[in-house]
Amino acid sequence: MKKGGFTLPGEAGYEKLTLELCEKWGADCIRDSDGTQLSDEILKSGVPIYSTICMVRNINGWAKENPDKLQRCFLSTDPKMAVGGTLEIVPLEKFFRPQMTIWRGDDAKKLWQVWDRTEETLLDADTWEWDAERECVTIKNTHPYHFYTVSFMASRVWEEISMYNHITNGWGDREHLMAVEPRYPEVQEALLSYLDDWCRSHPATRVVRFTSMFYNFTWIWGADERHRSLYTDWGSYDFAVCPPALDAFEKEYGYALTAEDFINMDRHNPVHNPPTKHYRDWMEFTGKFVREFGKKCIDLVHSYGKLAYMFYDDTWVGTEPWSGHFGEFGFDGLIKCVFNAFEARLCAGVEDVETHELRLHPYLFPTGLKGEPTFAPGGHPERDARRFWACVRRALLRVKIDRIGLGGYLSLTEPFPEFQDEVARIADEFRTLRDLHENEAPWSTGIHVAALHSWGHLRTWNTSGHMHEHPELPLNHIYEALAGQPFEVRAISFDEVIANGVPEDVDVIISAGREGDAWSGGEIWNSPVLTAKINEFVARGGGIIGVGEPSAVRGHGRHFRLADIFGVDREVGLTICCEKYNCEVKPHFITKCLADGTHVSFHNHTSGVYALSGAPDIILTDEATGDIIMSANEFFGGRAVYMSGFTYSPENARLLYRALLYASHRESLACEYMPSSPYIECSYFPKTRQLIVMNNADAAIESVISTPQGEITVSLPAEGFEILNI
Amino acid sequence: MKKGGFTLPGEAGYEKLTLELCEKWGADCIRDSDGTQLSDEILKSGVPIYSTICMVRNINGWAKENPDKLQRCFLSTDPKMAVGGTLEIVPLEKFFRPQMTIWRGDDAKKLWQVWDRTEETLLDADTWEWDAERECVTIKNTHPYHFYTVSFMASRVWEEISMYNHITNGWGDREHLMAVEPRYPEVQEALLSYLDDWCRSHPATRVVRFTSMFYNFTWIWGADERHRSLYTDWGSYDFAVCPPALDAFEKEYGYALTAEDFINMDRHNPVHNPPTKHYRDWMEFTGKFVREFGKKCIDLVHSYGKLAYMFYDDTWVGTEPWSGHFGEFGFDGLIKCVFNAFEARLCAGVEDVETHELRLHPYLFPTGLKGEPTFAPGGHPERDARRFWACVRRALLRVKIDRIGLGGYLSLTEPFPEFQDEVARIADEFRTLRDLHENEAPWSTGIHVAALHSWGHLRTWNTSGHMHEHPELPLNHIYEALAGQPFEVRAISFDEVIANGVPEDVDVIISAGREGDAWSGGEIWNSPVLTAKINEFVARGGGIIGVGEPSAVRGHGRHFRLADIFGVDREVGLTICCEKYNCEVKPHFITKCLADGTHVSFHNHTSGVYALSGAPDIILTDEATGDIIMSANEFFGGRAVYMSGFTYSPENARLLYRALLYASHRESLACEYMPSSPYIECSYFPKTRQLIVMNNADAAIESVISTPQGEITVSLPAEGFEILNI
Repeated sequence: MKKGGFTLPGEAGYEKLTLELCEKWGADCIRDSDGTQLSDEILKSGVPIYSTICMVRNINGWAKENPDKLQRCFLSTDPKMAVGGTLEIVPLEKFFRPQMTIWRGDDAKKLWQVWDRTEETLLDADTWEWDAERECVTIKNTHPYHFYTVSFMASRVWEEISMYNHITNGWGDREHLMAVEPRYPEVQEALLSYLDDWCRSHPATRVVRFTSMFYNFTWIWGADERHRSLYTDWGSYDFAVCPPALDAFEKEYGYALTAEDFINMDRHNPVHNPPTKHYRDWMEFTGKFVREFGKKCIDLVHSYGKLAYMFYDDTWVGTEPWSGHFGEFGFDGLIKCVFNAFEARLCAGVEDVETHELRLHPYLFPTGLKGEPTFAPGGHPERDARRFWACVRRALLRVKIDRIGLGGYLSLTEPFPEFQDEVARIADEFRTLRDLHENEAPWSTGIHVAALHSWGHLRTWNTSGHMHEHPELPLNHIYEALAGQPFEVRAISFDEVIANGVPEDVDVIISAGREGDAWSGGEIWNSPVLTAKINEFVARGGGIIGVGEPSAVRGHGRHFRLADIFGVDREVGLTICCEKYNCEVKPHFITKCLADGTHVSFHNHTSGVYALSGAPDIILTDEATGDIIMSANEFFGGRAVYMSGFTYSPENARLLYRALLYASHRESLACEYMPSSPYIECSYFPKTRQLIVMNNADAAIESVISTPQGEITVSLPAEGFEILNI
Repeated sequence: MKKGGFTLPGEAGYEKLTLELCEKWGADCIRDSDGTQLSDEILKSGVPIYSTICMVRNINGWAKENPDKLQRCFLSTDPKMAVGGTLEIVPLEKFFRPQMTIWRGDDAKKLWQVWDRTEETLLDADTWEWDAERECVTIKNTHPYHFYTVSFMASRVWEEISMYNHITNGWGDREHLMAVEPRYPEVQEALLSYLDDWCRSHPATRVVRFTSMFYNFTWIWGADERHRSLYTDWGSYDFAVCPPALDAFEKEYGYALTAEDFINMDRHNPVHNPPTKHYRDWMEFTGKFVREFGKKCIDLVHSYGKLAYMFYDDTWVGTEPWSGHFGEFGFDGLIKCVFNAFEARLCAGVEDVETHELRLHPYLFPTGLKGEPTFAPGGHPERDARRFWACVRRALLRVKIDRIGLGGYLSLTEPFPEFQDEVARIADEFRTLRDLHENEAPWSTGIHVAALHSWGHLRTWNTSGHMHEHPELPLNHIYEALAGQPFEVRAISFDEVIANGVPEDVDVIISAGREGDAWSGGEIWNSPVLTAKINEFVARGGGIIGVGEPSAVRGHGRHFRLADIFGVDREVGLTICCEKYNCEVKPHFITKCLADGTHVSFHNHTSGVYALSGAPDIILTDEATGDIIMSANEFFGGRAVYMSGFTYSPENARLLYRALLYASHRESLACEYMPSSPYIECSYFPKTRQLIVMNNADAAIESVISTPQGEITVSLPAEGFEILNI
């Protein structure tokens, strides 16, 4: 057994267990967790210590004394209809008051906006009044039967992770932690002073793990228990708003942001919608600040001879590792909590950090995400660990990860010796995979695939958060399928294509989204330059895969602007008198991998897609409705594949693999390192002539692998893993 | 048995049968059909004769000599991409050449348009050339990778009904009939002269039935056998286009229509899309012409002492009976071919004509619409007749129809004596129902219901054509449900509401459509005046029922502009980070009629509808997805009901009935003339104290009817009918 590359959560009171498992799992690092403190015995064991820290909520005494230095955000009321002449609106009515209070600082009212939402007009400030005592806005001379909203700035008086843990675990009168606003010099001073003290008082700590940088993901809670969570998005930058930031923004960008830039008709600015220019500017501005002040913190950590890692999960604001600027922080490591392979790729692909670490599931908690037992009676944590690992390790066929680790309470594993054994096995398997990547990259098809969407590079290998949060998004599933496959994957933005066309080395574009969203693109498809550039790319031999509603926008003859490339379009009810081509389903290269009678379905199927006259090869249709599920089309020199949706499964991943070979005119590669079973995936390391084979299924599988060296038959147990020398 | 009110299709060679069935069915009129000629024996039988005529295709000799006087239309090619500098486009490529040729009249090219569809820009006429010999347009200096189309004027050289019958029946070298363009004075002269001759040579004819007026519904055929029908719409006015009409239009309206007004990015202008101002003007202009020249024809018929009826099915152009101008024709009768009850209401509700006649199904043809046997081995025409009649007669509970009749070949009924008996029974039942309406109107809830859509009055009791053509449209099904129910139904347009608000006497509005279509309204919902007027109507006590995507338009905070009234909105992918209210399904007045465990489903269900925070009573949800299927909401003084779709069934019709009672605050009416079974419907005539009860099911049903006079138990056989004196 090899050692290293493993972070163990230590637990005081269980020193023996901690050190035993440290040995068993080959751990080279012991970490504390939220709520655990490491004992002296562990601290002095000689194993390097790794400590978590979340600065902005860790100076709560200071925060209480400085309530005007808390973090804030803009909020809007629900629309309320006027009937008579005046209308009263209580700004906080729908919000969870333990989280939000009205910010009453100087000039606060200047930031407020009152809107007539029926007309979408902003009211003059002299047409409404704020009664601070009653916490109520009165709008005078309203237009009867119009709806009005009030946008205002709130102070967030309970940091959201503290709030969530407190309420979920019933912590009673335990202190509410508050997040301070680092835009204020006084706050920066307090934070740096805290960090300095902390570093000095934790001599045993080798690695300081920042749980987040400064700003939490946006999470707005409601007053109604049946509607506790009103808005959640990992990628919204709403919680970094405060007057000094807005002032600095105006100075730097030459224009002022207003409440409506954030409120956006109460839709806010989720990652999943095409961003406005203003919001992009805000993200850039905020990112710059987070990196600048973040670097000061990290420099301080370094000055104590410690390493600084970032845990990339609770907050993306300004810390997004694919921003192109992540290196400016100076972090030594990046840790990603993973359920899926695409998250492992997200972590592994960040070039400007040395150490890439995955936090595996299950966490050492009594129950899992949905309340199901894990380390509790009825739980089978060893099975959970094996399933999670089988999902994630696909990515490790393709790329190197440096470390793995666990989180939670180690003592919970005591009654589960099978789990302890399973983790030892996983740790070993991980180290084997890691070492393979040391000296060479695995064989690849060499096919360059670009996910095309509003965000480009910034949102490579992810949309926002984990798969289970938005399982309806086909792009999440596309990323998941690609994560274990031998393609060179990147993401490009519409703006890049408009400016420079599709990059020369891209073989296949993938566009996967729903009409109007950031992944499909929305109104940017009104750009004739964009459509012409894509037309050109495909006509000149490029490949394109469209999923769901690629290039959809209203107001043109076709619903999909690229309908003629795909040979299909979607009926959204405006061309029902245009009768549809009576198309035929034909066998196709892409589906040759399917056993006869295999039923292909996507949970996020887009209804109503039909073939244009005579155009495409129809590969699969929905028998009940006739809707197209998959089609392929030759367009001048290039090829297009359309799929009505995409959800990850081994079978669907294989279809995508073959669709990419087809779209790039590389069908011959279907014989290279291709297992007959879609549950089997492999990776070939040419220098050492090692073929890594894994079984992703939870049942034993026998499969034939086509390789240039001939056919190889493998037989693997459930979730099995093997290295063949060929 | 009573006599009269029945039109029998006579058949030469079967004189005995004709006269026998004339007696058996109580017919007072014998008609000819397409392809049949009545013999002298029938003509001289003393039974009034009723002859069909379709003028525009009946002067084919003259048409052949005057190919420049045929009817025309604008067509557009499919978009074609340019690669190099020039692009060749063959205008007729995708069209069925036996139907369409290029019109080469003087100045034809002035009407043509060449579009860059990537930019949506019109090309200057000097950038393209027409090669008449090769029938090809060459566009010079194209923008590479842009798509281009050519719009042009085609001559229609085969009248569509002639073409369809000819091809369907394999008529070989039988003459192709052509439709002449009555805008030309020479054509008018030829038609009037033909009609004059015809009247003179048909002395036995008592009723001249015009099969259509002048212009067929729009039906464009394709070259590809797998795509024979490219575009069909009963309500499109595209086939009335010709240069003299365009010239006259420009003089009258002060602006010129161009090809694009008709082509509309190759979507044309289907009834189902919100009409443009230009197209409305065109419809008004064309309608006026059709009525003016139509009146000349009808006057001529009258001058021979004959009556003139119109068969309202093959064409709507200018003849729409709910235009408010139908009386200007001077028709004596209106005949409607019916499958459904709403079509019977469409016919019965036309006030400016004396006689209202229904053409029942099945037609006396060997096979039905879908090719299934009717009057052929395996067919059960008596069952078909009973089912069709049971569908249609619901309307006759509410309104008076004067006549019914059949079409087709009478001889086919000979081997089906049960059919002959069934028709005798139907004819008698019809006459009984008709007579009930002679002296009084039946009891009504008195609730005034207005269907709100783009067309208003013009499209009362119909969208376009028969139910089976667009079964996906919820409004068709709403009309069908209402057709047999005791409500006062009308249709109002958005424009009327914008101008004058909802009429004072309307109790409940129904809006049933899909985002962007004419029934939902599309971009008109950007009007704050419209939304405020509806807000006002409901706030002041009005009711509203929204089906599918009522008031949907993009670009606002809510997808439904009336979301706050309904208490629900639809997730179209742009607010996925706004988490949804965790609503509860509650029992409700509307669904009290359902037996426990009844499953309600609409085939045209709209997915993704969710409850706004705390707002509505949720009545039904989709168990698999959590989507709302039905909800109710109190909004100030009024009430709103939302349904995710609506398809007609007796159960769903009953839900709509109760939804209307709820929305109008008239729940107490649920005890008045309300059968316990939704398959039973009834109508009460107060003066004679007769309660008409019908069983719409094809099985015997026992049911209790609540009436103010007490509960009445009825037991009816399948499709049974009974009159109770109470």
